[in-house]
Amino acid sequence: MILLRRLLGDVLRRQRQRQGRTLREVSSSARVSLGYLSEVERGQKEASSELLSAICDALDVRMSELMREVSDELALAELAQSAAATESVPAPVRPMLGSVSVTGVPPERVTIKAPAEAVDVVAA
Amino acid sequence: MILLRRLLGDVLRRQRQRQGRTLREVSSSARVSLGYLSEVERGQKEASSELLSAICDALDVRMSELMREVSDELALAELAQSAAATESVPAPVRPMLGSVSVTGVPPERVTIKAPAEAVDVVAA
Repeated sequence: MILLRRLLGDVLRRQRQRQGRTLREVSSSARVSLGYLSEVERGQKEASSELLSAICDALDVRMSELMREVSDELALAELAQSAAATESVPAPVRPMLGSVSVTGVPPERVTIKAPAEAVDVVAA
Repeated sequence: MILLRRLLGDVLRRQRQRQGRTLREVSSSARVSLGYLSEVERGQKEASSELLSAICDALDVRMSELMREVSDELALAELAQSAAATESVPAPVRPMLGSVSVTGVPPERVTIKAPAEAVDVVAA
């Protein structure tokens, strides 16, 4: 199962790091405890809408931009998940699904990463 | 303050209504109580990541598509909010900000809706 809070946490952490700011600084500006912000960034706690708004203010980013980035991350995670699902189909059925070809690459070199490697996805 | 759960609720309700489905049907398919789903749609309860995933499955929509729609709604709400903020600047300062002109419309006909009218936004 792809969890929104995981991808949201990744996006929030990346945004903060892009600005070269510390957890302490952003948590103080957003008036949220350092521990809580850290848990939100690690996808361990759901951020309430009020908290998310405060974090966006602290990071000086629009919530729409943040959610656009989350949506893009979700799309990648969904792709990785469906690729992994195709991989796990029993061998006799797989050739029927393999209509996508990569030209110039020998078939044995085409690998599809498991979601855990490709993106930060929690398996259901 | 623009609340994510409000816009998310709107998007979820719209998606369900587009499919001509009832709250009862979707709540049963997502294994969530009808009352809870109704509160999520009305923006009164935060949906956990697990619940959101279950609702997406029940509606047969990708979470990335849903969040893309939420991001678009957020962008509109942010625009309405900043327009309202410009409106509320004291009169002597306003002409300095009024560099946007609408041609062919007499100035007295140009109105900027308050966010509460334009979109479902909660004032901070």
